[in-house]
Amino acid sequence: MTIDVSDIPALARGCAVLGTGGGGDVRTGSLAAVRAIREHGAVELVGLGDLPEDALVVPLSGIGAPTVSHEMIHSVDEPGRIADEIERLFGRPPSAVMSSEIGGSNGVAPVAWAAGLGLPLLDADGMGRAFPEVQMVSMYVAGLPADLVIMSDVAGNVVTIRPVDGLWSERLARAVCVAAGSSALMADYVLTAAQARGAVIEGTVTRALEIGRATEGARDPLGALQARLGAARLITGKLTDVERRTTGGFVRGTATIEGTGDDRGRTLTMELQNENLVAREQGRTLAMVPDLITVVDTETAGAVQTESLRYGQRVTVLAWPCDPLWRTPRGLETAGPRAFGYDLDYVPVEELMAHG
Amino acid sequence: MTIDVSDIPALARGCAVLGTGGGGDVRTGSLAAVRAIREHGAVELVGLGDLPEDALVVPLSGIGAPTVSHEMIHSVDEPGRIADEIERLFGRPPSAVMSSEIGGSNGVAPVAWAAGLGLPLLDADGMGRAFPEVQMVSMYVAGLPADLVIMSDVAGNVVTIRPVDGLWSERLARAVCVAAGSSALMADYVLTAAQARGAVIEGTVTRALEIGRATEGARDPLGALQARLGAARLITGKLTDVERRTTGGFVRGTATIEGTGDDRGRTLTMELQNENLVAREQGRTLAMVPDLITVVDTETAGAVQTESLRYGQRVTVLAWPCDPLWRTPRGLETAGPRAFGYDLDYVPVEELMAHG
Repeated sequence: MTIDVSDIPALARGCAVLGTGGGGDVRTGSLAAVRAIREHGAVELVGLGDLPEDALVVPLSGIGAPTVSHEMIHSVDEPGRIADEIERLFGRPPSAVMSSEIGGSNGVAPVAWAAGLGLPLLDADGMGRAFPEVQMVSMYVAGLPADLVIMSDVAGNVVTIRPVDGLWSERLARAVCVAAGSSALMADYVLTAAQARGAVIEGTVTRALEIGRATEGARDPLGALQARLGAARLITGKLTDVERRTTGGFVRGTATIEGTGDDRGRTLTMELQNENLVAREQGRTLAMVPDLITVVDTETAGAVQTESLRYGQRVTVLAWPCDPLWRTPRGLETAGPRAFGYDLDYVPVEELMAHG
Repeated sequence: MTIDVSDIPALARGCAVLGTGGGGDVRTGSLAAVRAIREHGAVELVGLGDLPEDALVVPLSGIGAPTVSHEMIHSVDEPGRIADEIERLFGRPPSAVMSSEIGGSNGVAPVAWAAGLGLPLLDADGMGRAFPEVQMVSMYVAGLPADLVIMSDVAGNVVTIRPVDGLWSERLARAVCVAAGSSALMADYVLTAAQARGAVIEGTVTRALEIGRATEGARDPLGALQARLGAARLITGKLTDVERRTTGGFVRGTATIEGTGDDRGRTLTMELQNENLVAREQGRTLAMVPDLITVVDTETAGAVQTESLRYGQRVTVLAWPCDPLWRTPRGLETAGPRAFGYDLDYVPVEELMAHG
């Protein structure tokens, strides 16, 4: 299977839904992907089974500081410089590009990076969604040593970090990013195909494409999206209050949605930290991180990013289960509610819904 | 020739004199050197001619941020981790350690690093004195590409920077250093012995030892030091005013010395930026960077660091010519008065003295 220019809008819509409000504006990644495909041709999408065991997979993401996650890429040379450094360090070039984070712009931009490098894109990512910190990836949860980060910036600098652990990885990568003008391309955990098994979340590019296509030409986009995601509808209503502040590089805040129609009389409040993290109704928690919570336009079912939440918007909040990896003890320790400062024991969204 | 515990006090005194007020407290480097020699044995001092052409020389320095220059080392593992990274990148281990900066603590500490690695110390450095920024080294002036910096911190992280130029090298190294807790060991410009020829300042460890020994047991320490340095005596007097402020990570300020004895009635003001940079008398410049200006205790001829300047101290200010490398156009561009923000055309100290 290949990803061509005509696939980008669906991929972008799907990545936006999986971004749970964060992960950067998908238009940035889309623009880069379309441009790169036009110049270099369509990108082959491969599975782990298509790669030799010792083939090197490069998980790439654009990072912006101090929030190390989303952001755009300003130059087309960064992937090549990172690939050169990998070849220098490993004695062989990378065989495939992988998205570190399928949610948001970082799910779409790897198509551009793969096209530019003339490499296939691995149908997998490191989150199955979006998360704000570099150690919040499946490779870390799986216990792979966070022993190598390669960064390249628009000026042409290449920085290779051999951190002692994931937290140092985050700290040093962030510092380099800030010094490099707050935007860089990053390869985190260069993996062999053998190492990637069980340590990446497979099939997520295909899933993003399917999510994006579910609403294409649908008579009931919201219903189609809900069915494709297997999502619970938490509320349909109107955004009546949005409180956002940028602190420590994160957009933090709350959004309040008052029910309309069947949901009249209900009020849902949502806690945000770049991504939508916790949905509550009158003290009762309806869904929480690492499960996915996405705000969509009720009419078009298009995902609404945290930064685009506006008073008066007619929205529906959907929630659905995260990848099982995030529900393991180490997964929850890494990206469960307490990792974001919430004094909450994790309960899966499907249980919260069943016992509502 | 070897450097043993008994040589460290003389080396430290010499490095303090060459530090021109900066380069970090030599007691820190001395302590580490004595400890390492006691544990690993004396360190061999070698010249470039003693090394095969392709032998790798590692210029090492402790860096502290935001002032990237002096500072202590907290752990003994950093040199080994840097040596491992060099072996990984070059396919062979380093053959010798070199001081990046002979002035101050960074002139003495390499003895400890060489002892710990079981390697000889090259009788050379990258400055012939002390300077505050990482691009202010002879390798940069000689036009060697500033294409590799390897850093290791006390936590065990190793960061390799491939900067596009010397200024990016400084910027990224500084950022990594701050993130790593404001102290790290750095290898800048890994060189082959062949590359080092003409790009390092040779003989500076021996020179520091000779300077340190000149005052040992001397009846007239000041005279002995002045003769050994070939230094002009700018003034002998009393420190009457010291104004220091730490801005942008630098100690900046001025020191005023009022002449005593033969110099009664004269007043010298000295501009400081970590190092002593410009000495003036009634608007007339007596000496300026990159020539060396050092404040010494008039009685003992021991160098007084910028941070230790105190009201009432009886001091003599000495100035003498820098290495010819710093007087080339590129040398002056890198570390001449204008590189430090002074609107002054460089005039060699011996000319200023002759036409005084």
